[in-house]
Amino acid sequence: MIRRAAVHRVAMRHPGDVAAIEALFDAGVPDPRDVVAILGKTEGNGCVNDFTRAFAVQSLTQMLAVRLGTAPAEVAHRVAMVMSGGTEGGLSPHFLVFSVGRTDAAANPAGALAIATAFTRDFAPEEIGRMAQVEATAEAIRAAASGMAEIHYVQIKCPLLTTERIAEAASRGATVATHDTYASMGLSRGASALGVALALGEVARDALADAAIGSDTALYSGRAGTSAGVELMRNEIILFGMSPDWAGDLVIAHDVMADAIDLPAVQRALRAAGLDAGGGQLPDAEQARLVAVLAKAEPSSDGRIRGARHIMNEDSDINATRHARALVGGVIAAATGRTALFVSGGAEHQGPDGGGPVAVIARRADL
Amino acid sequence: MIRRAAVHRVAMRHPGDVAAIEALFDAGVPDPRDVVAILGKTEGNGCVNDFTRAFAVQSLTQMLAVRLGTAPAEVAHRVAMVMSGGTEGGLSPHFLVFSVGRTDAAANPAGALAIATAFTRDFAPEEIGRMAQVEATAEAIRAAASGMAEIHYVQIKCPLLTTERIAEAASRGATVATHDTYASMGLSRGASALGVALALGEVARDALADAAIGSDTALYSGRAGTSAGVELMRNEIILFGMSPDWAGDLVIAHDVMADAIDLPAVQRALRAAGLDAGGGQLPDAEQARLVAVLAKAEPSSDGRIRGARHIMNEDSDINATRHARALVGGVIAAATGRTALFVSGGAEHQGPDGGGPVAVIARRADL
Amino acid sequence: MIRRAAVHRVAMRHPGDVAAIEALFDAGVPDPRDVVAILGKTEGNGCVNDFTRAFAVQSLTQMLAVRLGTAPAEVAHRVAMVMSGGTEGGLSPHFLVFSVGRTDAAANPAGALAIATAFTRDFAPEEIGRMAQVEATAEAIRAAASGMAEIHYVQIKCPLLTTERIAEAASRGATVATHDTYASMGLSRGASALGVALALGEVARDALADAAIGSDTALYSGRAGTSAGVELMRNEIILFGMSPDWAGDLVIAHDVMADAIDLPAVQRALRAAGLDAGGGQLPDAEQARLVAVLAKAEPSSDGRIRGARHIMNEDSDINATRHARALVGGVIAAATGRTALFVSGGAEHQGPDGGGPVAVIARRADL
Amino acid sequence: MIRRAAVHRVAMRHPGDVAAIEALFDAGVPDPRDVVAILGKTEGNGCVNDFTRAFAVQSLTQMLAVRLGTAPAEVAHRVAMVMSGGTEGGLSPHFLVFSVGRTDAAANPAGALAIATAFTRDFAPEEIGRMAQVEATAEAIRAAASGMAEIHYVQIKCPLLTTERIAEAASRGATVATHDTYASMGLSRGASALGVALALGEVARDALADAAIGSDTALYSGRAGTSAGVELMRNEIILFGMSPDWAGDLVIAHDVMADAIDLPAVQRALRAAGLDAGGGQLPDAEQARLVAVLAKAEPSSDGRIRGARHIMNEDSDINATRHARALVGGVIAAATGRTALFVSGGAEHQGPDGGGPVAVIARRADL
Repeated sequence: MIRRAAVHRVAMRHPGDVAAIEALFDAGVPDPRDVVAILGKTEGNGCVNDFTRAFAVQSLTQMLAVRLGTAPAEVAHRVAMVMSGGTEGGLSPHFLVFSVGRTDAAANPAGALAIATAFTRDFAPEEIGRMAQVEATAEAIRAAASGMAEIHYVQIKCPLLTTERIAEAASRGATVATHDTYASMGLSRGASALGVALALGEVARDALADAAIGSDTALYSGRAGTSAGVELMRNEIILFGMSPDWAGDLVIAHDVMADAIDLPAVQRALRAAGLDAGGGQLPDAEQARLVAVLAKAEPSSDGRIRGARHIMNEDSDINATRHARALVGGVIAAATGRTALFVSGGAEHQGPDGGGPVAVIARRADL
Repeated sequence: MIRRAAVHRVAMRHPGDVAAIEALFDAGVPDPRDVVAILGKTEGNGCVNDFTRAFAVQSLTQMLAVRLGTAPAEVAHRVAMVMSGGTEGGLSPHFLVFSVGRTDAAANPAGALAIATAFTRDFAPEEIGRMAQVEATAEAIRAAASGMAEIHYVQIKCPLLTTERIAEAASRGATVATHDTYASMGLSRGASALGVALALGEVARDALADAAIGSDTALYSGRAGTSAGVELMRNEIILFGMSPDWAGDLVIAHDVMADAIDLPAVQRALRAAGLDAGGGQLPDAEQARLVAVLAKAEPSSDGRIRGARHIMNEDSDINATRHARALVGGVIAAATGRTALFVSGGAEHQGPDGGGPVAVIARRADL
Repeated sequence: MIRRAAVHRVAMRHPGDVAAIEALFDAGVPDPRDVVAILGKTEGNGCVNDFTRAFAVQSLTQMLAVRLGTAPAEVAHRVAMVMSGGTEGGLSPHFLVFSVGRTDAAANPAGALAIATAFTRDFAPEEIGRMAQVEATAEAIRAAASGMAEIHYVQIKCPLLTTERIAEAASRGATVATHDTYASMGLSRGASALGVALALGEVARDALADAAIGSDTALYSGRAGTSAGVELMRNEIILFGMSPDWAGDLVIAHDVMADAIDLPAVQRALRAAGLDAGGGQLPDAEQARLVAVLAKAEPSSDGRIRGARHIMNEDSDINATRHARALVGGVIAAATGRTALFVSGGAEHQGPDGGGPVAVIARRADL
Repeated sequence: MIRRAAVHRVAMRHPGDVAAIEALFDAGVPDPRDVVAILGKTEGNGCVNDFTRAFAVQSLTQMLAVRLGTAPAEVAHRVAMVMSGGTEGGLSPHFLVFSVGRTDAAANPAGALAIATAFTRDFAPEEIGRMAQVEATAEAIRAAASGMAEIHYVQIKCPLLTTERIAEAASRGATVATHDTYASMGLSRGASALGVALALGEVARDALADAAIGSDTALYSGRAGTSAGVELMRNEIILFGMSPDWAGDLVIAHDVMADAIDLPAVQRALRAAGLDAGGGQLPDAEQARLVAVLAKAEPSSDGRIRGARHIMNEDSDINATRHARALVGGVIAAATGRTALFVSGGAEHQGPDGGGPVAVIARRADL
């Protein structure tokens, strides 16, 4: 009996709608007990006051608690849930359900999608957004990556600073990385991404320092997707890679978009996952094998894309990250012919300035 | 001496910044006296309270009045100005300056870009959004199209209803198409687009009726781009086509996007204009010959793109047209590798529901 | 043993935070079994895609199900919950918990706050926004009002049309009031408010007709607050009045704001409830006796306030109802010195055009 | 012949509409040559990409250039123009035209409104937001205030940092106060306000230091209103005070709102200007004598108003300053019964945290 990963993509009619996942369970695949992670793209603003994320998590937790016959608190320990707010442009709200089962089937010599979850210890407020978070994250990834031939994407949910946490640190005479709670989200995302870069050898240890976090955009991981949440103090990590020890017909590959309109990078990632659009948009047959796309989006800090001015950073009516998700969603939809894409914002140290990682999970053609 | 059309694309740093156009004039090309039309993509919300359009027009008018040594009012008669608000996602604010000069050069046997402007009579308020507007528009287009072998894009600026205009009509016992001034913008854009469809034989006369305007989405033009403005009561029309009687190295072609993510349609339009991306994104050499892209964007009315739900119509924080421009801008940027694209919203009867026309102006490779 | 109404006002830290209500239960007052209604002011946009309302209802339902030892579905039958989205300007998110207990105390000869809930039958889609809804609502109110000397405020949660419901009606050959689902919310709110007006004798039966609903702003109730929700097909009604048969020290009074800045109307309502600011802002002692303020806000349809233009209806970045809540919230906060105010938008037939009802619940000074 | 100040308040239909001011000139009062300053409340978002301010200034400049027979550049030197974007809630877009004429009338022994304008030298980028700006501003105010018995309001337009200006300073080895251009607006507004506080003796010189600017909210002026603009490098100052040497029936007074809902402070300012509402809203007769209200609004930094949470700082859909203007506009409209109020945001060091100055200009009753 070896492990086999499965990924199911289902639509939601609103952030509290988990009926499509229940339908999967009712149909018997996957078994609720095999679910290890659920990613969701919800239709909020993806910023500070986006409550669609918490609403979706609460709805998922309630439903899973019943299906698993456990307490809601227990569900949170068993299933990693990462909700990304913001379906601007044409992005379509959806859930990605990741499960790991056992099978008698032989391992796939060419390798198959492997999924692992890992957790760091709880961080002290003064560690958030600093090297302590970077190193603990890298350590957890190294431990969990054993047995994976390649890591293609690392999704991390990380903590942020609140007024209470800053005060608690101060009461111990400790100083935090920033007193701006919103800024702490970016620093925590950045430190977590640099932890991935360190673990995967994308960045050298001696190139890293507290001062570089959130400032040196030349340092980044091409395989990290991180998001900050107020409900935890540790980093929750989901690794996606290929392993010759796993069974199944799923493949994952990735590439890095150099800027927000880097269609060729998206097409390279698709080809690496065995999907070929001949340069254009995926034909139906190929698209049928496309399971999921995970990408990060952010406005370039210099306010330009290939020399032309964009207004994302100057628009006081629409948050810059909302513009960026809509744009990158359009570029990836152009390549794939699909709008149910997990494009999330806040890409500090996740890909180059203005660009970002793009990972593709697909089903093999020969199966 | 025959006619030769020229098109210059320049950036603006803000809606009142016409310095780049003045630099063109200072360099001698084009001659301000040859300018027939200026299109501008400004960074407003593109909706009701978008004053970036009027600000840009006022700035252009002031500058041209000085350059031409005429009164501002005279400038408005000489140069058709159409400002489209909304540079969501990665769209870059820019002006497109269209001029027509005379040359000793021979006409291009293969045809060259030809530009013509036309105007209808002023409409009575009760004619706006109705067949009277459709027919007068078609008539003006037919008259202006003489000598053009093919028409590829027709840009129209049309009037809208205001409380005062509705009252004036009522005082004569006339009833208007709608008492909702915002809705009147859509009806006027739709009637103008159907005027194009009628003139170009895209729709049969007997398929048209007042009741169909704004409601029967099966009726549309694949070559119309219309926008409503409060400052006029007539339709101002700019025709873009190919003519064997004109000189120059510019070519225009068009296609119709079936939906918002129809990359293949964009690529067909590029190829028809002599630009080939081999299915991917335009390489630099090809992109250097891309002069302008004109397209329309709108959210599909059924709330879906290829079966997947989009949230454009339900988002009460961001107007649906803003989402649509960001998305279509991303798709066209994916194909062209450029963000200075004239993507405008409000596509009633301009292309199919959820899709829209896309026109490409390019420079010939062999020149 | 006679009835005594209690009202508790508690803050929420986010739409899913019901901890403050749990703290009340833990302290023993009120008894969860006595709770008849919970109103909540949540920090969403109060428009189409405001999910803070459903999130709050889900959180309340979960918590009450545990406290009452019943199924979530049962909670919905026992406790009427009305969440109003939108805390613009300075409005503070909060819950109002209404409970009815029994006491040996004597009835208050001067009358005391009395609360009653009522429900209509489920409506057919074609009845929504029409006289059938008006009359069924009036009937339910008359039945529930028995024993109340005066009715001062009637909060109603009413259904709306969805694409599915419109289709179901069509399948039976029935036509609905509108095919615009967003517009159906306004028609349902309006019909429900006219039901209140009819029941309370504010409008004569023969002045009402389907055509007047949503159009004749001269017809309105000065004591209705209605909101539409997708989760029900009937009208859920909460009546607030004074009764000589009830015990307790709570008083309710109301007045009607003629426009959005009608401070005198707010001050009249406060005085009628026994609170006097001497024309200015409530002093602390008086404010301590102010339990709750319920009011409706909407932009005037003519775009003016006392002759001066407002931009609420032209702002395409901020929904008009958000501007209106911020403004009316400021006016009532000026009078009361408090920002935890239940100011909700969408005031069709609830007060005059641009104005709205304002109800005050206070504690008697002499107790 | 002594000086007499006049103030005219006129509505605008859109930011480019100066027709109402032209109507004043056509009627002969004021004489365009007497105009010293024009304040405008325009309907933009009041934030980074609010172009309604520049549009209004351009429209005013064009019109005045014609009326004065001078070059547009000359107009800018003669007339101080300060446009404040943002008419949230019920605020009504309007212009305030300030003029100073000569009269044979006797000076008003009780004092009359006096207006003076002053300018600092151009600042170097590294001086912006620092003590150099504070001291130069204080110096200019002291010089201009001579002859005024009391100063009640000081409106200042100040510069901000741009990428170019920061680079220019760097090229000289100078470091600027911040590299965040948006943050530089707040520092410049704050330093200018502290300049007022220093000049008027509201803050002691030794309490001031670079580090306090933008951080120590305990230091503020109760009479400053400052706004930053990209078009200048110096501070342009307009002083409003009372002088026994001036003629006329206008009076100015001010007070300080301790928080956003401080109605009593507004009522004190009204009474100090001779307008009495008896604690409620100004009756028509009193309101007829109310010429203008100038106030500043900002969200409290602790996220609370009298202990109750507000969501201004957490709302990623509506900028916090927009919420604050809507709220304070509602409070002042409650007191005055008028919505044409000059309420502007960005109140760093202008009044206490969460509050702000409020100045009232009124006509004497006895004239």
